[in-house]
Amino acid sequence: MQAFDIIVIGSGPAGRRAAVQAAKLKKSVLVVEKGRRVGGVCVHTGTIPSKTLRETVLNLSGWRERGVYGRAHRNKQSITAEDLRRRLAITLDHEVEILEHQFARNSVQWVTGEARFIDPLHIEVVTETGLQRFTALRFIIAVGTAPYRPPNIPFDGDAILDPDEILELKRVPRSLVVIGGGVIGVEYATIFSALDVKVTIIEPNEILFPFLDRELVDEFIHDMRDRGMSIRLQSRVKRVSRQGDACLIELEDSRQIWSEMVLFAAGRKGATDALELENCGLTADDRGKIEVDRNTFRTRQPHIHAVGDVIGFPSLASTSMEQGRIAACSAFDAPLQSPPEFFPYGIYSVPEMSTIGMTEEQVRTKGIPYESGIARFRETARGQIMGLDSGFMKMIFALETRRLLGVHIVGEGATELIHIGQAVLNLGGTLDYFVENTFNYPTLAEAYKIAALDAWNRMPRRQPSVAAFDEATAMLERFAKAARGGQTSTRSR
Amino acid sequence: MQAFDIIVIGSGPAGRRAAVQAAKLKKSVLVVEKGRRVGGVCVHTGTIPSKTLRETVLNLSGWRERGVYGRAHRNKQSITAEDLRRRLAITLDHEVEILEHQFARNSVQWVTGEARFIDPLHIEVVTETGLQRFTALRFIIAVGTAPYRPPNIPFDGDAILDPDEILELKRVPRSLVVIGGGVIGVEYATIFSALDVKVTIIEPNEILFPFLDRELVDEFIHDMRDRGMSIRLQSRVKRVSRQGDACLIELEDSRQIWSEMVLFAAGRKGATDALELENCGLTADDRGKIEVDRNTFRTRQPHIHAVGDVIGFPSLASTSMEQGRIAACSAFDAPLQSPPEFFPYGIYSVPEMSTIGMTEEQVRTKGIPYESGIARFRETARGQIMGLDSGFMKMIFALETRRLLGVHIVGEGATELIHIGQAVLNLGGTLDYFVENTFNYPTLAEAYKIAALDAWNRMPRRQPSVAAFDEATAMLERFAKAARGGQTSTRSR
Repeated sequence: MQAFDIIVIGSGPAGRRAAVQAAKLKKSVLVVEKGRRVGGVCVHTGTIPSKTLRETVLNLSGWRERGVYGRAHRNKQSITAEDLRRRLAITLDHEVEILEHQFARNSVQWVTGEARFIDPLHIEVVTETGLQRFTALRFIIAVGTAPYRPPNIPFDGDAILDPDEILELKRVPRSLVVIGGGVIGVEYATIFSALDVKVTIIEPNEILFPFLDRELVDEFIHDMRDRGMSIRLQSRVKRVSRQGDACLIELEDSRQIWSEMVLFAAGRKGATDALELENCGLTADDRGKIEVDRNTFRTRQPHIHAVGDVIGFPSLASTSMEQGRIAACSAFDAPLQSPPEFFPYGIYSVPEMSTIGMTEEQVRTKGIPYESGIARFRETARGQIMGLDSGFMKMIFALETRRLLGVHIVGEGATELIHIGQAVLNLGGTLDYFVENTFNYPTLAEAYKIAALDAWNRMPRRQPSVAAFDEATAMLERFAKAARGGQTSTRSR
Repeated sequence: MQAFDIIVIGSGPAGRRAAVQAAKLKKSVLVVEKGRRVGGVCVHTGTIPSKTLRETVLNLSGWRERGVYGRAHRNKQSITAEDLRRRLAITLDHEVEILEHQFARNSVQWVTGEARFIDPLHIEVVTETGLQRFTALRFIIAVGTAPYRPPNIPFDGDAILDPDEILELKRVPRSLVVIGGGVIGVEYATIFSALDVKVTIIEPNEILFPFLDRELVDEFIHDMRDRGMSIRLQSRVKRVSRQGDACLIELEDSRQIWSEMVLFAAGRKGATDALELENCGLTADDRGKIEVDRNTFRTRQPHIHAVGDVIGFPSLASTSMEQGRIAACSAFDAPLQSPPEFFPYGIYSVPEMSTIGMTEEQVRTKGIPYESGIARFRETARGQIMGLDSGFMKMIFALETRRLLGVHIVGEGATELIHIGQAVLNLGGTLDYFVENTFNYPTLAEAYKIAALDAWNRMPRRQPSVAAFDEATAMLERFAKAARGGQTSTRSR
């Protein structure tokens, strides 16, 4: 039986990062991945494929150029499922290769197969070549999640799909109902809408994305509706059924929606069932999630950490990686500075959204005196050049300290642009940073300057310094009086 | 005769920003623009059109997707000059509208026509409706530049062109020689190369862009040559002549180059001739440039400021705007904080380049102990998804303080991405900022983290804290010894 300093179960962003960090601490590391290849949900059915699909759709559809050439513009007139899958395969192969190389370079070993705990220090893995047992002093659980598939939804792998299945799409439907207005549901909904599929989102809550700034979400919803998407809030699905070539979605309020395809994206479940957690003294909740200390990601068993989607919110690849790094350091008691207060949240819908720091609602709740400034991408020269007709940024500043409190962006490039605000926020910068710094022209980043000036224009002014006019100016004044004669300035306000 | 608090001559980025700033100080402002519409060279023949052309070429050629679909990939098989001009017209109209609206909103008056000084306080403008005279106590000269057209180059508006004329291109040539390897020459050279035009750059210096980091330029030159561009350094042009349908370029070393089209882009001249500067007590140098104090942009005449390309380096739209703002404040003695030490430099070639802070050469010259880290865009998941096969970032950190000293990027999105480094640089952030912060995944911004970790891996380590293992860990160690038996860890290094 092979022994390791640490065993990491799962090779998604959280597990991978934990494994590499442990290896960098010169520990022996085994990664167990239940799929055929490393990468986890992120690489194979989650972040990477959905973002690749998104990129493919935006390219083939000519989405980014529609502001210039009109809404009927297409780079490719007829887009097939094959078109969408082709690029996916190329990207995934590449990404897996990089991961395997990263593991090899750091001397991280890995086996593929499903792991289960035998006791707190031993696991058993069902590999292709049979049962194998491994032991370690420390474990990191990073098994991620799987789509939640309630028994009353007749998934058929053809027209009624979960988010994993939609990536193996056999045809592009004419209409699509997305059940669940969370991040995954909305990402796919907007991607298919960009392909001119008629899309309806059904969400039981009365608002989308309750953790985001309201004004941002309002802009986003407006944008979706403006291009013909239907968003039904406060709607619950009673029944979904296949009726010949179509699907019938019946809502609890008795309304009916017909659609060629249905994507059920209402929730994900921690993939903890196969782990037999009871054998290591842990339990998962009814959604398969594991409870951890949020600073160290230690579970109730001090030698077992859990990271990534399996511990719940925020369930982002980016934060999962950080959790992996922190958990590995925590496991070996390695020094680790506490991470910065604010991290960006990115949603890869069409258009993208990204946000950092406090929302306007949070600032109000805390009673901090503030001012906000907004900019629209079309106000920037780059936005003009790219033909953007949407894109919106809001910044919030504290009135007293002028410190940046939050940035909220919807529009192409939002997930990249947010990092500028993140740097200013986490390094304690103020409104003046944006007013005084030069930005490349033309860039979308200029929206920061525009939004900051907008806030500045509405903020209480410091008294202007009554600097004494110098002699030359006074002389010029006299000099000019004669020239100007009796005429007054033509400018009125 | 109308009198104003200030008259701004030129409505490019520098003039526009100066005018708006003066208006915000509640001064009466007149802008004089010699073209038919406001905007200056930037909008009509410079920054905006060349960047729009660039965007059009990248879209139509499918350039950004070639990493995925191969070098033969095209979004549009045959790209005509009409395709290129079409989008230009749309963007320019839009941009001029925005400028005119901005002037109107700020009650800035403007006239179109060529201005000349009568005396230090009066100008005369030749407008469509005849001669008009205006007076003011203060002037800002922001007349910009025009292409330098030496008499020995037989410009014909058809095959031998200057950078203004190339925007009115009647056909896309099969081959193009660009004389002058400065920013403008290289931008157009790489744009036409993306259209599969066979491009040759001729430059008398032995290196391109001497003010940029050498490693960055080397990457860029490699990229250009890799796609078939020819770059002839240390080459001087002796004669250019039209020979039937072709152009013959003879070099001083007797080599000959044949090409369908020639772009002469070796230098620009301050557009000061018509101003009759002698009437206001100023002079321009032999390249039409005006000398100013570099902090206030005041000329030798205390009531006249000069800003933008007419004062020379760096001749960027972005820095010109800042100069305009500072000059307007200086003119009215308004309070103004000194701008941050570092501003970004952006080159809109294909691929883009952008840089901020010190180059590796500058750090060495100053004798600062440093370490650098690099990242390639293809190492990021976003780079994979976008199919990028080029893209390179270098960061330089001080060894002692760990402070960021410079960032140098070549690759798509460089001009946007640089602003993250700018914020960390100008707010005094260190290597640890990049290591500890979470970046959205997948984004190109992750290159910052990769480059920082690369530098971190090569920097001298702080001694790891010998934190005492806690009781639980010690217990686990003993617990496991039995399980592990005699077997040692399989990992070797």
